Amino acid sequence: MSRMTTNTMSRRHLLTLIGKNLGAAAMMQGMGTLGFAAASTYAGPIRLDGAPKGTQILVLGAGMAGLVAAFELRNAGYHVQVLEYNDRAGGRAWTVRGGDRYTELGGATQSCDFADGLYLNPGPWRIPYHHQGVLDYAKRLKVSLEPFIQVNYNAYLHSTDAFDGKPQRFRAVQTDYQGYIAELLSKAIRKDALDDALSAEDAHLLLESLRQWGALDRDGGYQAGRRSSERRGFATAHGGGLMPKAVPSNLLPRDPLLASRLWQWLSSGNEQDFQSSIFQPVGGMDRIAHALHSQVASAVVFNARVTAILQDEQGVTVRYTDTTTRTERNAHADWLVCTIPLSILSQIDMAVGPDMRAAIDAVPYETSVKIGLQFGRRFWEEDEQIYGGITHTDLPISTIGYPATGYGSTGPAVLLGAYMWGPASYEMGALPPAERIAVALSQGGQIHPQYAREYQNGFAMSWSRSPFTNGCFAAWTDALREAHYANLCQIDGRIVLAGEHASHIPAWQEGAVLSSLDAITRLHRRIVNG
Amino acid sequence: MSRMTTNTMSRRHLLTLIGKNLGAAAMMQGMGTLGFAAASTYAGPIRLDGAPKGTQILVLGAGMAGLVAAFELRNAGYHVQVLEYNDRAGGRAWTVRGGDRYTELGGATQSCDFADGLYLNPGPWRIPYHHQGVLDYAKRLKVSLEPFIQVNYNAYLHSTDAFDGKPQRFRAVQTDYQGYIAELLSKAIRKDALDDALSAEDAHLLLESLRQWGALDRDGGYQAGRRSSERRGFATAHGGGLMPKAVPSNLLPRDPLLASRLWQWLSSGNEQDFQSSIFQPVGGMDRIAHALHSQVASAVVFNARVTAILQDEQGVTVRYTDTTTRTERNAHADWLVCTIPLSILSQIDMAVGPDMRAAIDAVPYETSVKIGLQFGRRFWEEDEQIYGGITHTDLPISTIGYPATGYGSTGPAVLLGAYMWGPASYEMGALPPAERIAVALSQGGQIHPQYAREYQNGFAMSWSRSPFTNGCFAAWTDALREAHYANLCQIDGRIVLAGEHASHIPAWQEGAVLSSLDAITRLHRRIVNG
Repeated sequence: MSRMTTNTMSRRHLLTLIGKNLGAAAMMQGMGTLGFAAASTYAGPIRLDGAPKGTQILVLGAGMAGLVAAFELRNAGYHVQVLEYNDRAGGRAWTVRGGDRYTELGGATQSCDFADGLYLNPGPWRIPYHHQGVLDYAKRLKVSLEPFIQVNYNAYLHSTDAFDGKPQRFRAVQTDYQGYIAELLSKAIRKDALDDALSAEDAHLLLESLRQWGALDRDGGYQAGRRSSERRGFATAHGGGLMPKAVPSNLLPRDPLLASRLWQWLSSGNEQDFQSSIFQPVGGMDRIAHALHSQVASAVVFNARVTAILQDEQGVTVRYTDTTTRTERNAHADWLVCTIPLSILSQIDMAVGPDMRAAIDAVPYETSVKIGLQFGRRFWEEDEQIYGGITHTDLPISTIGYPATGYGSTGPAVLLGAYMWGPASYEMGALPPAERIAVALSQGGQIHPQYAREYQNGFAMSWSRSPFTNGCFAAWTDALREAHYANLCQIDGRIVLAGEHASHIPAWQEGAVLSSLDAITRLHRRIVNG
Repeated sequence: MSRMTTNTMSRRHLLTLIGKNLGAAAMMQGMGTLGFAAASTYAGPIRLDGAPKGTQILVLGAGMAGLVAAFELRNAGYHVQVLEYNDRAGGRAWTVRGGDRYTELGGATQSCDFADGLYLNPGPWRIPYHHQGVLDYAKRLKVSLEPFIQVNYNAYLHSTDAFDGKPQRFRAVQTDYQGYIAELLSKAIRKDALDDALSAEDAHLLLESLRQWGALDRDGGYQAGRRSSERRGFATAHGGGLMPKAVPSNLLPRDPLLASRLWQWLSSGNEQDFQSSIFQPVGGMDRIAHALHSQVASAVVFNARVTAILQDEQGVTVRYTDTTTRTERNAHADWLVCTIPLSILSQIDMAVGPDMRAAIDAVPYETSVKIGLQFGRRFWEEDEQIYGGITHTDLPISTIGYPATGYGSTGPAVLLGAYMWGPASYEMGALPPAERIAVALSQGGQIHPQYAREYQNGFAMSWSRSPFTNGCFAAWTDALREAHYANLCQIDGRIVLAGEHASHIPAWQEGAVLSSLDAITRLHRRIVNG
């Protein structure tokens, strides 16, 4: 037998062996002809060459769009200053930790009491694999990422009206829904009901695929037994030695399953924005914004509330209030990148043309409520074997999100106890923070009875009450885009806008990043080409 | 507005608010009546009380089963000694790193040249959420876990005969398969072809659910457009500012998709053994075994090749060869837990009754090949946006597994370049290691043309050539289980067997753990009760 060791084998030798095994021609052909479909509009780090010496650019807002603009424009050789209303960088890319205080519109103040290392991301909390702009900044700035769990087969789907309000495991609902669909379609094919749509050969292939995909028996039936239990779980699991034999689980009956509408949540993980792989920064979503900020920290002025934006042929002037000293100030520059959310910008005097003005005023903002709840232990892991992921419910809280980090650790942990949109989130936002938490505990307690015993403290963010955004994200409609989007994004004199609101990816950091890169690329060209 | 801060709110007050919001009765009812379905046969840490003083137990094998037995029996007060053939703990729960050397049957030796921090798990590489035994040892011994990515929507499904051999993204195949199924079933329902199987109300609900689940249009059609592209991906993705408008992607045509058989891989993530959440230990699978070993290190004798197992009414005697000195030795004890794989045990003289002997001799072993390939950079991430997960192919290599750790890092990385079963893995195992690697490079290069340029070194494990297992895992059939399983697991005199082969969870560490816990529980009872 050969005693050749792999480490003595040259790359040349290996390529020879490859050629011997499959044919070098095939290999080279493979190398030359395979293309990779575009997964992102992000084209890699931008290059802005030839910035005129001494040119000053003012950036309004130190969220993701503003920070990206400041970072890239500075790298390109511009003099950059950033004004930020908050006393921190990141904007909605925000992470709340123990010791943080936050006062919302209306004056309610929350002090966050989370234990060390625990956090809530009140804004974005996940980064899809195809958001290559955000991912590239994380990579370049050495921000560690860890997988976010979107779909957890052992988490629950819950409807108050279905199955006596008892939460069902995702694995059971998905397996049964898929099984019944496969069974019904098989039945229709066997009845020749689809002969006009399927050739005999395709019908045969489809039946075969449905048996496998739907965990059907040989006759195309979906039944309780080993095959279905290998997906939906056994009533008594397989064991070792002489432990009791495995017992298959019962199916959820088909018609109650249809009536339950639990199927409405089966597809969330199929949407590209939520498909695996999907990530979160280790330690909190603000890590990326903070890494960007650390690159431009000397340029950023916090506690600067913009009150007016002026421009003429010589440059731009921004009036702002230093909210710590309550003094009025002016900032001047040659050009302006404004990333202030439209919900706020529409309240600010701004010297732009009627088209951009109309666009700024036209776009309504969605709201959202997110509530972080700290519990004394990870009962969802210890009692229910739920490690990360999401439970969906038709209760107003809508979502329970389990932490996708620190699996198996002891001590307290924070879960997302509510993630609400639309009317329910306005109602929730109308309550004082402590009552929002009480509601989240009450509703979540229907799914996790451990809530009452294990609850320690919480933090309830209502975006409609956010003083720095007055909402969550720009709620574009197709009609609004048609009428206003291009006008919003055009450079108006010396001013260009950026942010998720100036993108086709609203509510996501990727929209802010791509919008910013596009805006500063066009601004740079204007500056350079005159 | 309220200025109440949540940290000043007592738990009692919160419970009152809960009661106010949803009714305390409902809350208490919720707490009392919700049960949690059993997800595992593991019943928590075992307690073995009343071990007679001075009782000696010999354990053969320091894999997961042997280490669990040694750890728990020692905790229970027994004198424990472990004999292990290898010079390391863990058995098949093994991680190969740079600097490791391995000589297989036939004499071929591989030196692993992986860079620091990189590894291959030649045996188990993932831990499902329902393998509560393994997970609990990881937790108790503080072994950090990180998510393993089983399903990656951006990885490939590949058939040499389909779509000109061009790999297809999982997201495209899944979306299109689901869409076509939903479309066909909708068509059958609208034709009233399933009226005997569905009430009008259920038919209506099912049509509604299929529209959402299958990303169908209002008329139940599956088409290229925004809805399907939001799942399968856009040809030109959404951008920011004035970037080009998004362009929907074309569908894979239905009949070629059926003929491609790429659908055969859509369900792997639906199997409970592969469902999310699923984990790997940070740093390599051997971390758990090593943590167990560190608890019992003083009891473990390495390089001990067992040659005979004797027992009489006084105790057990095990003859073994110290492979470092080539000397013959005996070990004595009162009782024996033998975790040697049946493929090896069937070659060893052993004083057990004919039933256990027949069982030991009856069970064949599967083989498997796993190949780790180190490349100079993570081209799968950088060029193709594949972060972890699995590409499936009908080439003999079968599987390409991308590392589920270190996302976004620069420098070299190791991917799993082949994971083979059955006849193909015997053929592969018949080649010298370097040629196995060459084959893996050649075949994998059809999917990733970057292979040829980026390859650095590799390690190729063939389990049929493993000197310590002569195979991969016990290949029980239903008939073999019926005839032999109980006989294998019964205590024979002073001897009990344990390992994945003595479980209903073959090939998984959980089988080894549960088998071991069951075996030592029964043995302990026998010892205590006489």
